[in-house]
Parts: sequence; structure tokens; C-alpha cells
Amino acid sequence: MNTLFNFDPYGSVTTPQGFVAGAAYAGINSHSLFNLDVAMLCSEVPSHGVGIFTTNQIKAASVLLCQKILPSTSVRGIIVNSGCANASTGEAGQADAQSMGAAAAAKAGVNMADMLVASTGVIGRRLPLELLNNAIEKIILSPNGGDSFAQAILTTDTKTKQCAVSCDEFCIGGVAKGAGMIHPNMATMLSFLTTDATVEISFLQKCLRMAADKSFNMISVDGDTSPNDSLIMLANGMSENNQINEGSSQAMLFQQALESVCVYLAKELARDGEGATRLIEMSVFGARNQEDASKVVHTVISSPLVKTAIHGCDPNWGRIVVAAGRSGASLEESKLDLSISGIMVMREGMPLPFDKQQLGHELKQDEVHINMNLNLGDSSATGWGCDLSKEYVCINADYTT
Amino acid sequence: MNTLFNFDPYGSVTTPQGFVAGAAYAGINSHSLFNLDVAMLCSEVPSHGVGIFTTNQIKAASVLLCQKILPSTSVRGIIVNSGCANASTGEAGQADAQSMGAAAAAKAGVNMADMLVASTGVIGRRLPLELLNNAIEKIILSPNGGDSFAQAILTTDTKTKQCAVSCDEFCIGGVAKGAGMIHPNMATMLSFLTTDATVEISFLQKCLRMAADKSFNMISVDGDTSPNDSLIMLANGMSENNQINEGSSQAMLFQQALESVCVYLAKELARDGEGATRLIEMSVFGARNQEDASKVVHTVISSPLVKTAIHGCDPNWGRIVVAAGRSGASLEESKLDLSISGIMVMREGMPLPFDKQQLGHELKQDEVHINMNLNLGDSSATGWGCDLSKEYVCINADYTT
Repeated sequence: MNTLFNFDPYGSVTTPQGFVAGAAYAGINSHSLFNLDVAMLCSEVPSHGVGIFTTNQIKAASVLLCQKILPSTSVRGIIVNSGCANASTGEAGQADAQSMGAAAAAKAGVNMADMLVASTGVIGRRLPLELLNNAIEKIILSPNGGDSFAQAILTTDTKTKQCAVSCDEFCIGGVAKGAGMIHPNMATMLSFLTTDATVEISFLQKCLRMAADKSFNMISVDGDTSPNDSLIMLANGMSENNQINEGSSQAMLFQQALESVCVYLAKELARDGEGATRLIEMSVFGARNQEDASKVVHTVISSPLVKTAIHGCDPNWGRIVVAAGRSGASLEESKLDLSISGIMVMREGMPLPFDKQQLGHELKQDEVHINMNLNLGDSSATGWGCDLSKEYVCINADYTT
Repeated sequence: MNTLFNFDPYGSVTTPQGFVAGAAYAGINSHSLFNLDVAMLCSEVPSHGVGIFTTNQIKAASVLLCQKILPSTSVRGIIVNSGCANASTGEAGQADAQSMGAAAAAKAGVNMADMLVASTGVIGRRLPLELLNNAIEKIILSPNGGDSFAQAILTTDTKTKQCAVSCDEFCIGGVAKGAGMIHPNMATMLSFLTTDATVEISFLQKCLRMAADKSFNMISVDGDTSPNDSLIMLANGMSENNQINEGSSQAMLFQQALESVCVYLAKELARDGEGATRLIEMSVFGARNQEDASKVVHTVISSPLVKTAIHGCDPNWGRIVVAAGRSGASLEESKLDLSISGIMVMREGMPLPFDKQQLGHELKQDEVHINMNLNLGDSSATGWGCDLSKEYVCINADYTT
């Protein structure tokens, strides 16, 4: 961890100065872990807002609405609901998202055009606007509201994901949700980041993209990509630092702090993948180029056969090699080195004798680390996934019923 | 079904004239359903042999060996083992595959260069040559040996897959195995086809490629591609028909007959996917081009969320639309029509009211038919997959242990 800033696992989106949040229960569906399903985050002053959204051609109404607003230098807040994705709902769904944003803007006393909207949940159902409006009315915004916000946006998640980092000059807070439909570009996830730093808006957008590419775009739970994926960052300038831009002395520090928040949240998402019992960290070294390194990481962490083998603590390492082989990356079997949680199982393409009992023991740990060296070049990449359990099937076999 | 030829679900690779087969038990591992794990198929006369093999960069020793031999006008037989893939075994593994082929050639009294080899099973383990050689010695080749051959090549399959079609001029028989690691280009599968037709060898190769693209390359069980995938066809000319080539009057009939065998076997593979309880048939219409149609089919039949929803008889059709949206194919949400087993659930991108009980009932049937019209062009494609069950996880969590 970087020593230039402090990492706070108990931090939240309201840790940076000038942000308030709150949540309420509308009763949208019954999957709500904390009896909260509407969450609202506001900045006391207009903030620079940027976002990255799903690459799926089917986009939720909330995504279309945010894409119209962002980037913006006057964002005042975000209203989020869980339980209903408001996706595949046509023009009526877009009107619903606007209504939801309008209700939140009225509650906060700000312009509708400065209120962002996000939704997550079942696809193809209309938002229950009356329930939502009643709930929004009841939200109490507070500088201590970060935890409630983190709870209200969850769907099949089993726990909240949030943190903050701070240094002398600024603070960055973050929250995320998402347990299924998690896959690169983007995961099925919502993540909201706040900072009290003053950041030039195009630099903010660039930093967010770079951080996402090393974090949220390097995780996979099940290979499905949601129409609702949204990563939104608000910078309100309340810390009154000198504005950070491409050339400023704080640029690198800001980027590193942002990445540490994003990587932490991304790993928490993978660790809490639907039905997951352990985190898989996959690192590839020696790839010909960055794209190849990422391809191998993505293919291995997405492979059902790798995921089930790790679930069963089965040292069936051949599946890892074979997943790499179909990734589309350049590789030569006779050059491959592979280790699992520190135990070498293949060197230069040949199986090595290894202690099966010891590897079985390592596979039972909360985190499994796979390292593969292609020995063809200098590029590397790291990504995160999770095991595939019977529980994943149970969760997804009766999601709407 | 085409009326110009007869389809025989009880047919096998020994139904065409001049083919004999047999099997034995070497004891390679304990997954053998019928206590058979070595199978041998021979033609009484030299045959035209062609093959299509895995696209995985990690290729099993048997695949490398067959790729050296094929295409060939003098193939005499194929020796196959289940239980050990002989993949990721380096040069030693290649020598082992040659030894296996040599033992089979000696048994059949033919040249080693005319004996093909195929393996399926655990990756990264050496072949137990002594066990194999002893078992090959015991094989009794017979014109009634097709069933035993079909049984011996199985791994986690729960039943054999074989059939034959015949017309006045020729007969085609086929067998396949494969239940996990099943995915387009090629599935983890072995399939062997025999015919007594006389077929010009380059035309035979072309027919096999076309048939594979409509059958084995249109199925998915779990998205993983094996290093052992092999589809091999032998044509021995014993029916003494006029040689079939590109321009001959029988060319179309031969192609149709071959496709009917391949589609039947491919559907049987998907239906018997690891842990599967039902077959999913996905058809896409109105795509801009063939590639787009195939992309949508592949993405939907590979989606864990679609597969688990169908497993749970959950009418969560939004997941189908969203999978199509991330397929990379051109689509416009406002033009999409979707029906599931005959019940329209979406028209022009808008959800339709439907009888949930009726759809729930349809989803409980052995086959679920998904039809999607993109309404953008004239291309279409059909593919097959299966649901994702807890049983899939159980099977794959402790495969080697």
C-alpha cells in the first residue's frame, strides 16, 4: 500500500468533505438484505461529475440518462434504487428514470439536470414510481449516511463494499455493489466515488478510465455484462486544494489513490461474487503485449472449469493452461511456467511433480493466487475472479420468482 | 427430416459397410460408465480420412499426431482412450501417443502411419502405456462393435451418442462423446464418422467443415474449449458408388446426410451436457449477416445467467436480451422480438404481457426453444446448449480427485 496516503476500510462516500447521503425502503422487491432499496448521495456544492458505463448495446434507462448529463461541472447528486433495473423498458422506462431523478432533485432542492440516476435489479420490469417517490421523501441526508447508502444499493451481495483513502490534500471515498453479471467492460456493478479534491474535469475522466482498466475491468464473476453498469465519480473541490490536472505535482498521487480505492472495491466485488467461497487472483507475466496479458487473465478467471476445480480444491491445473490456450493470446506451450499459491506445477510446458496435499491445503485458503509466465515478452496483468459453487446456481435459478 | 435418406437412431460407426470396431477396459481411471476405456475402429480397406481439430493453442499429443497424418487416402483405423487426455505432457506425451498408435496398428496388422489416435480425459497426466497395450491386445473387432466403441469413449457423459443415415447409394454412421468443456470451435468432444461412400478427399474435407459449422460449432455447454477436440471422418468406398465430388449429382444428398448426422450428434452432446436437465435450442433471425446471427446464438447459449434461469424455470427473459446485447452483433433494442417456446415476451423492444404460469410450464419441458428476431436483415443461425445446474458444479469440483 502506498505510504503517501492512508487507507481506511471503514471509510465511505461521505468521508470526503461536503458529501451527504441517506437511504430508505420502498419495497421494490424482497431481495433487500438491509431493508433498504433507495439510496441518495448529494454534494453540498456543484461538483465535477464523470462516468463510465456499460458496453452492452442494451442500456438501462438510467444509463442513457446519465450519459446525457455527464461530463458535467454542476452535478449535485445521485439517486439509486435496487430491485429493479429499469432496463428493456423502452421509452416508458426512460420517462420513469426522469421522474425518479426529478423526485430526488425536488427532495434535495437542486435542478433535475444535476441529479444522476442509477438502477440495479430485475430486467424488463417498470419502476414502481409511487413506492419510490414515497421512499425518496423519507430519506434523511447526513454526513454519516455513507453506510446506509452502501447497504441500500446491494442486490444479491452478502455485504457492503466501501472504503476511503486520504492524504493531507484530499480524500477519496468509494462504494460498489454487484455480485452476479460481473464481467470486464464493465462488471454488473454500480460504483460511486466521491472526492473533495478540486480536479480538472477532463483529467478526472482520464484518471477514472485508467483506474477502471486496472480494477473493475479486470474482474469476472460469470461473464455476463449488465445493461446497468455505471461507475460515477464526483469531485466537489471542498478541500480547496490547488486544482489537479495532467501536469500538476499532485496528479500521480491522485491517480494512485484513486486506483487503490478502485482495486479494493473490485476485489471485494469478486470476493463476494454470487455463491463465491474464495477469491482468485490471476497474474500473467511475460506476455508479448498488454492485450495478450489481459486476454489470458480474463479467460482463466472466467473459465467455469477452472472456477469449479478451485471450488472443489481440485489441483486440476491443466484447466488453467488450456483456458490460456483458448484466450487468443500468443503463447508457446513449451515456454509456459505456472504456479498456484506459490507451488510450481509446470515449468517450460512440462508438468512438475508437486505435493498434492500441500496444494490441496493452499486451495482451501480464502485467496488463491495463480501466476503464469508466458516467457515471450515484458507485459503483465492482474485480475480477480471467484470460484463457481452450487450456490451460484441456486441464487440464479430463481431470481425473479 | 429429409425423405431421400433414412435416419437410424440405433445406427453406429459400424453400420456402413466394411467397418469393424471393438473396445476393452484398461483401467485408466474410475469415471468409466460401462467399464470400457479403450476403443478401436478399423476399415477393412484403406479409406479417405479427413479431420477438424481444436482451435486451442494447447493441443493434445493425439491431435498433433492426427494433424500430421490427415488428410490421407490410406487410413485404416482409429484407436481412442478415455480417462487421460495426454495433453500438456510435452514431447514425452507425443512419444506415448505414437506408442499407442503403434500398438493398435500391430493389433490390426496395418501400418502405424495409417492408424489415428484420439484421447480424452484428465489433462497433464501421462498415458498408462502398459495398461493400454494390454487392453488393446484384448480388443475384438467386429461389425457389431459400434455400440462398444460408443461406450468406451465416454467420460462424464451419461449415455452414448450415435446414429446412422442411409440411402440407396451409401450409408453414414457417427458417434460422439463430450459433456463438459463443450464450446464452439470445437467443443470438447470426440466424434468419429464413417461412410462406405466413395468421396473425393478434398470434397470430403469441405463437406465435413460445412457440416461442423452447422452442428458441432453451434453448441456450448460451458464455454471451455478442450485441447483434444477431434472430428474425424473416414470414407472407405465399400458401397462402390460413383465417386462423389463437388460437381456430382450426389453431392447435395451426401452433404445433407452428413449434416443430419452431425446435427443429431451435436444436439445429443448439448442435451447430455454435464449436469444438464434440458436442451436449449436458440434461433436467431433477421441478423445483418451470418456472423452476427452466430454471435448472438453463441452468447445466449453460453450465458450462465440464461442457463441458470432456464434451469430454475424462471421466466427471466431479460437475461436473454442482455446477453444478445453484449454479443458484439449489431442490434437495435427497439426492433427486437423474442419468444420462448412459442410464447412472445418482447415485441419491438417492449415487454409483452404473458402468462407466467404457461411459460413456467413450457420451461419445464425437455427442450426450450428461444427465437429472437433482430429485424435488421436476412441472416439466421441456430445453436444448442443446456441449462446450468448444481450438478455441473459437483461434477467439475472434484474431477481429478
